[in-house]
Amino acid sequence: MPQRTEIATLGEFGLIDHLTKQFSITNPSTEKGVGDDAAVLSYPDKKVLVTTDLLLEGIHFDLVYVPLKHLGYKAAVVNFSDIYAMNGAPKQLTVSMGISKRFSVEDIDDFYAGLKLACERYGVDLVGGDTSASVTGLSISITCVGEVDSDKVVYRNTANENDIICVTGDLGAAYMGLQLLEREKIAFSGQEDFQPDFKGKDYLLERQLKPEARKEIIEALANKNVVPTSMIDISDGLSSDMLHICTQSKKGCRIYEDRLPIDYQTAVMAEELNMNLTTAAMNGGEDYELLFTVPASQHDDVVAIEGVKVIGYIAKEDLGCALITRDGQEFPIKAQGWNINDAI
Amino acid sequence: MPQRTEIATLGEFGLIDHLTKQFSITNPSTEKGVGDDAAVLSYPDKKVLVTTDLLLEGIHFDLVYVPLKHLGYKAAVVNFSDIYAMNGAPKQLTVSMGISKRFSVEDIDDFYAGLKLACERYGVDLVGGDTSASVTGLSISITCVGEVDSDKVVYRNTANENDIICVTGDLGAAYMGLQLLEREKIAFSGQEDFQPDFKGKDYLLERQLKPEARKEIIEALANKNVVPTSMIDISDGLSSDMLHICTQSKKGCRIYEDRLPIDYQTAVMAEELNMNLTTAAMNGGEDYELLFTVPASQHDDVVAIEGVKVIGYIAKEDLGCALITRDGQEFPIKAQGWNINDAI
Repeated sequence: MPQRTEIATLGEFGLIDHLTKQFSITNPSTEKGVGDDAAVLSYPDKKVLVTTDLLLEGIHFDLVYVPLKHLGYKAAVVNFSDIYAMNGAPKQLTVSMGISKRFSVEDIDDFYAGLKLACERYGVDLVGGDTSASVTGLSISITCVGEVDSDKVVYRNTANENDIICVTGDLGAAYMGLQLLEREKIAFSGQEDFQPDFKGKDYLLERQLKPEARKEIIEALANKNVVPTSMIDISDGLSSDMLHICTQSKKGCRIYEDRLPIDYQTAVMAEELNMNLTTAAMNGGEDYELLFTVPASQHDDVVAIEGVKVIGYIAKEDLGCALITRDGQEFPIKAQGWNINDAI
Repeated sequence: MPQRTEIATLGEFGLIDHLTKQFSITNPSTEKGVGDDAAVLSYPDKKVLVTTDLLLEGIHFDLVYVPLKHLGYKAAVVNFSDIYAMNGAPKQLTVSMGISKRFSVEDIDDFYAGLKLACERYGVDLVGGDTSASVTGLSISITCVGEVDSDKVVYRNTANENDIICVTGDLGAAYMGLQLLEREKIAFSGQEDFQPDFKGKDYLLERQLKPEARKEIIEALANKNVVPTSMIDISDGLSSDMLHICTQSKKGCRIYEDRLPIDYQTAVMAEELNMNLTTAAMNGGEDYELLFTVPASQHDDVVAIEGVKVIGYIAKEDLGCALITRDGQEFPIKAQGWNINDAI
């Protein structure tokens, strides 16, 4: 049996102290972190970026198959991804948690271990911590602060006609990882110590459970002096996020089905589940890849960056947004937004 | 019957748009608010303050007696209070909500109406909005960004020996308001359209349901060129928050019972409930008053500010923290921290 320390033995302030004391401050912009009414930051020469996410048990994660350490890592990384999507760099993080009695100090330690790994890997300081009781499960709220050079902020609403559309990494794998985990959960429901068969599917699991943000792409773009004309990170799926850029920029687009970057494991899994692979890549979501546009003149610069693919171009607004299939047909791209009825 | 529009009819993006379109940007430090991966802020000449709070239904609020509009107002104001406690001014706010199917668009509109009122009153811009489904009730996460002159940040850990201890407003009323609401809830449990008797208790209810942050005190201190040596806002109760200042400053303190500012209604209610009034004032919490220290030489400046009372002084660390009662006895001040076992 693993050790189980009740949170009540530490109390609120004891718990916060216990959780945060292992974090150190590394960024010069962090003047004061945890321990006062507010964190104190200094950004005299940069723009300040702020993004926030709320993660609720039963909606955003299922602890049956998500280890708490992975959850801590992912919760941080998805916020970093939002900062990179502005062409910035994440620097500070605050974490609030609502914790039910089901969880022990060791559980919360696991979550913070994942958080710490992410903070170290991406060079981010933890500057605020708040914990509270919860009547139902785990609620996590993360806010990330980042910086960007004043003349290098990249918005969603500034794509230009004839820009080329680029995407990093590959698409649909995180979604397939989720399908795989859900399938194994149902198959082994009720059994203790089950050993699901994930052979040859490790990439799908990693993409779902431990995604990375595309720090190195932002650095590579900066090295080549490329500032995208528009950018977003793919959290809701390529379709949804492409439509955000097009709608806000008042433009249309053409995406080529045969250009969509898809990993071999994703394709195999789609076949196994009898799912349409293109639909998974377009609408799967949780890829945390970057979707951006640059002028066609910068084509050679961007394709020289490892992991960047050109998948289409920005068109006039009245041409709408469409996917061009392998056989040359045009299908309108539709949003697959979140709907509150998805909640059980 | 009031109108009830299901949130599903708007969808996530429709709901965010519906909720945020009525807010306008008023601060020059806000370059980009809602609508991208992150808000973009500019603070070239000030320090940036960041504070965050997680509010969970069943722990931090009870919708049986808390109207959603008041909840929106209070959720914003308690964050502003944290920024004032650093001697700063709140400027931007992000709000994330997890919403169960129990809530309609009109409910969320009420919450946002309260939020808007608070933002207008305190001059704060809404710069980020996120909504999600929730399997259980309402979860609210608020992050507030503020600014402060570089040389005027006030921390908790910088109180000096012989400083006088000041508190604003009065103490214990919000706690008594909560007791009153809980009593009426139990008395009228199961009855529809109950009309509880709150006559002569309006101040207690206002303090509990619609607290204010002490903006005008921070402005008055600035007008008198007084920068407190330490400051905190009273959210957990005077005892707890005084101990934060003393522990972090490595000092002791003496607080005089007969100096504690207490409203008449608070005293009447304590009598009615047969509760110790001093305990309510010391440990009640949710006062959102400012507790600060200044050198004794600034005594006359601070007492000239309406609403500021001197309640004691900072002592050597080895003298500990004590309350001096009316009859001259010393009682050690103890923390009344939050405990996860308080959750039902």
